[in-house]
Amino acid sequence: MVDKVSRNNWGKWGEDDQRGALNRIDVAATKRGIAAVKAGHSLPLAIPLSSKGPIAGMRANPQHFMTRDGGDYCAGLKEKGFGYADDVVILPTHGTTHIDALAHVWSDGKMWNGYSCNQVTSRGASKCSIESMGPIVTRGIFLDFAGPDGPCEFEDVAISVEQLQLAYERTELQAESGDALIVRTGWLQRWRNGQAKETLWAGLDPDCADWINEKGFALVAADNIAVEFGPSPLACNAAPMHVALMRNFGVVFMELLDLEALAISARHDFLLMVSPLPIVGGVGSPVNPIAVL
Amino acid sequence: MVDKVSRNNWGKWGEDDQRGALNRIDVAATKRGIAAVKAGHSLPLAIPLSSKGPIAGMRANPQHFMTRDGGDYCAGLKEKGFGYADDVVILPTHGTTHIDALAHVWSDGKMWNGYSCNQVTSRGASKCSIESMGPIVTRGIFLDFAGPDGPCEFEDVAISVEQLQLAYERTELQAESGDALIVRTGWLQRWRNGQAKETLWAGLDPDCADWINEKGFALVAADNIAVEFGPSPLACNAAPMHVALMRNFGVVFMELLDLEALAISARHDFLLMVSPLPIVGGVGSPVNPIAVL
Amino acid sequence: MVDKVSRNNWGKWGEDDQRGALNRIDVAATKRGIAAVKAGHSLPLAIPLSSKGPIAGMRANPQHFMTRDGGDYCAGLKEKGFGYADDVVILPTHGTTHIDALAHVWSDGKMWNGYSCNQVTSRGASKCSIESMGPIVTRGIFLDFAGPDGPCEFEDVAISVEQLQLAYERTELQAESGDALIVRTGWLQRWRNGQAKETLWAGLDPDCADWINEKGFALVAADNIAVEFGPSPLACNAAPMHVALMRNFGVVFMELLDLEALAISARHDFLLMVSPLPIVGGVGSPVNPIAVL
Amino acid sequence: MVDKVSRNNWGKWGEDDQRGALNRIDVAATKRGIAAVKAGHSLPLAIPLSSKGPIAGMRANPQHFMTRDGGDYCAGLKEKGFGYADDVVILPTHGTTHIDALAHVWSDGKMWNGYSCNQVTSRGASKCSIESMGPIVTRGIFLDFAGPDGPCEFEDVAISVEQLQLAYERTELQAESGDALIVRTGWLQRWRNGQAKETLWAGLDPDCADWINEKGFALVAADNIAVEFGPSPLACNAAPMHVALMRNFGVVFMELLDLEALAISARHDFLLMVSPLPIVGGVGSPVNPIAVL
Repeated sequence: MVDKVSRNNWGKWGEDDQRGALNRIDVAATKRGIAAVKAGHSLPLAIPLSSKGPIAGMRANPQHFMTRDGGDYCAGLKEKGFGYADDVVILPTHGTTHIDALAHVWSDGKMWNGYSCNQVTSRGASKCSIESMGPIVTRGIFLDFAGPDGPCEFEDVAISVEQLQLAYERTELQAESGDALIVRTGWLQRWRNGQAKETLWAGLDPDCADWINEKGFALVAADNIAVEFGPSPLACNAAPMHVALMRNFGVVFMELLDLEALAISARHDFLLMVSPLPIVGGVGSPVNPIAVL
Repeated sequence: MVDKVSRNNWGKWGEDDQRGALNRIDVAATKRGIAAVKAGHSLPLAIPLSSKGPIAGMRANPQHFMTRDGGDYCAGLKEKGFGYADDVVILPTHGTTHIDALAHVWSDGKMWNGYSCNQVTSRGASKCSIESMGPIVTRGIFLDFAGPDGPCEFEDVAISVEQLQLAYERTELQAESGDALIVRTGWLQRWRNGQAKETLWAGLDPDCADWINEKGFALVAADNIAVEFGPSPLACNAAPMHVALMRNFGVVFMELLDLEALAISARHDFLLMVSPLPIVGGVGSPVNPIAVL
Repeated sequence: MVDKVSRNNWGKWGEDDQRGALNRIDVAATKRGIAAVKAGHSLPLAIPLSSKGPIAGMRANPQHFMTRDGGDYCAGLKEKGFGYADDVVILPTHGTTHIDALAHVWSDGKMWNGYSCNQVTSRGASKCSIESMGPIVTRGIFLDFAGPDGPCEFEDVAISVEQLQLAYERTELQAESGDALIVRTGWLQRWRNGQAKETLWAGLDPDCADWINEKGFALVAADNIAVEFGPSPLACNAAPMHVALMRNFGVVFMELLDLEALAISARHDFLLMVSPLPIVGGVGSPVNPIAVL
Repeated sequence: MVDKVSRNNWGKWGEDDQRGALNRIDVAATKRGIAAVKAGHSLPLAIPLSSKGPIAGMRANPQHFMTRDGGDYCAGLKEKGFGYADDVVILPTHGTTHIDALAHVWSDGKMWNGYSCNQVTSRGASKCSIESMGPIVTRGIFLDFAGPDGPCEFEDVAISVEQLQLAYERTELQAESGDALIVRTGWLQRWRNGQAKETLWAGLDPDCADWINEKGFALVAADNIAVEFGPSPLACNAAPMHVALMRNFGVVFMELLDLEALAISARHDFLLMVSPLPIVGGVGSPVNPIAVL
């Protein structure tokens, strides 16, 4: 097995760094994203947040409760010039469109930048938590592998680094340090149509990790469970690209995006804004990323 | 009491409208926000999401649980080349920095655009829910009432419409339809220093409602519990500005923002991005708004 | 359709009563239960409380979180002569072995004793809640319909009032006012073996309601989803025996019991203890009933 | 510091035992409890389960949500001959009247019977969990230290082993192996009257541990936060009696009982029934113990 120790970005942004490749997003990256705005339409990229899924197998569906509602007043509660509704959600942070904290994953007991997994206990993550992440405002580069003639147009397969390079070249864009890579696999749409389940999804082959890092991407996102193809064929590693790209290179993952409207737009670059909730000690956050075209 | 029926925006954006004054945010507003970007620095405007507050009295604090963590592996769970952490939050949607859905408030049994409060039951809001809201990308205009010599520099008082007009004029900006009004009261900072509690907070006097609507604002936000001063002095109405401005004019409210960094920036206009989570049937969403300066 | 107004116990224990047929459990009933104790062995009658079910379709599975555990200490937390674990459950009150409050069910807007269903709002039940119920200590009478040659030995069918009477006679017991009727349908065991699902279960035919009330039972319980056979064949009533027996006669229902050990015991009478949690405003409670043989 | 290794019951009920001193409750103990029944009145011993406390400082208050209620029907939902209410609780298992699992406490990394605290991870307790506990039906012996002239009649102090012995002698009862010791400190009542807080409570001095074990008690319970006096004066041990009595001797603790009605009864012996919910992997359970007088 290849020695990954030399192929990583640990220390690149300082021994104490907790934000990984998000450090690539400087004001130049933000302005490059802004410069990509043409018409000015904003597209939300999240799936509806409900108990209907999809959701990875080991998690419970979100739940939503009303602590005050219109029925209360109908049943006799008096307004005092003012009536209101209030609610509560119970949500696995990875249970809908979400972004992973760098504390989400480790290997050999070490996460991004060599921090020990012992930094994550029942009291939350004290290093590399979602609270450290900060806002993401940069250029997004969109590659659609589920479009006509795409490798995932009809089925859930792995996308090779060659296919990745080819799709990238077709955009005629030049990726720069701090960009975000957004990938459509078609899995979400197949799931909605009953043609796919949470047990198998199209996604990037783990061999894509080096390419993504070398192109300078800060973040990679997809319309599937794990960005990388799944389930992993490796008995010795259930999520090899999470290890190679997130844990080793510090590139951040976003999952379960809805990219259907983006696919229809025929655009490949845009302003991408993602704002994780600063959950103290959290290892992920639900998000509703915005693509401004 | 003034007849509010004539002073409202019901029907202005269609009988079926559920988004209220957010309809003012068109591509021109988005581009105006983008044009306000100078250096390109992104500021997150949310408070840390934890059980430590602040939170309005009738709500329970957020809770955070780990369903998998590093301690599990330390205690004997085997990695398969990959170890991970996972978590769950229990969160009142208004229990941290948040945006209200238009279904949050009503009076005389009617919410924004005349929808009946019966549209909100234990199964959630079927009209004017947070799911209908969509992304917000526009120009923000920031007024600081807690700065040196500001009316709220040291105490929690109501901000009058005259003080609002004066602070606005000082920015030398021209508000346009679709802008967002962001107001610093200083309450959050006083709360952090133990000088204020959730039982009294500086905020806008309800008389500011007309001014805010006439200036064309789509949204109003503050670093306090309710944007408007509280608690309400009116026995007959616990939240008069929520009724006058949100329910009647459809202007959206955001609360519990952290505006300290914005105050230090000395900027008054910037690109504001807010992305509510599309909670199906929800009446609010936690958010982490971004100000790009 | 028969006029149920005259066939009910409303007012029987007072206009203000909220406990229904549980009023039949007087000290004589308690002592009769105690007198039934022979060897003194205690059997718990609850299924394991976990996320693995079974659970009725519209409810979410229970969840269990650790807020402190041994892994924390393994990962570095220091004991101070003392280490501890702590946990939290999220539980639909009817999501495991449970007892229904009389506020759980109504028809034509009225629940037990004519109370309006408007007594139950997002703030809980103000009448007939589980908090009003109190402890249950009485004699249990056990009828096994899933034993050899029983009508439900192999399949999920409705148990008729004739079959009920026959099984009762075979016990040679005399039911008295305040006794509890415990019925084994075999559905739980079939569910465990993958031979049954939550979409169809053996249970009592709703025609059994009068017989149960006339025999003076305070409570009826079963090892299935709803005591009565389900799903209901009546388009006009999803739970006819809940209406006829709980709502009209005030007899309390317990569901999802594990009666396998009781079946093996070959006993038909015993001391039954059930202790609902006094959830303020609750409409049900998880319970672990005890049969002392 | 005394060597506790020799003063413990580890191995007494087998190397694999997970139930500790509850093993003392045999059919003789159950029958002795039954024999204590006189009039046959049943008293529930739980406090109301709500968000109003009391609760130990590090825990969140219980929460209660309605997922269906009468207001829904009032607001337009149609009955189909049948309307219902349903609810969910979020509950720290120790957040109301509760029983501790033996997995709740350890010292030097070992819990009851020498099991490693590593048996408790985010997935719950795999040894000594509440699921292993089983039903408790035995004789209760009640000692009231908050009655007239009692050491805790007016204040929150520690109850010495001499005071314990004296109160015991006054009952003229002979404790036998398997009995349950129930102690009233008066703290709950003072808390209700605003005269006490969760920061200080009357309770047993840890020196009582040996006496309790020697008398053969299986369980000890009180109307306070921790049975033992608190907070602990020992810098080196936050809960010395939990360690000496639960962890070393395997005696089970129940906390936050309401013993006011029992105090008024003037009874000292009765049938005690406690039925923990079999929460898989749980380290405690809410309970509503019953005293049958």
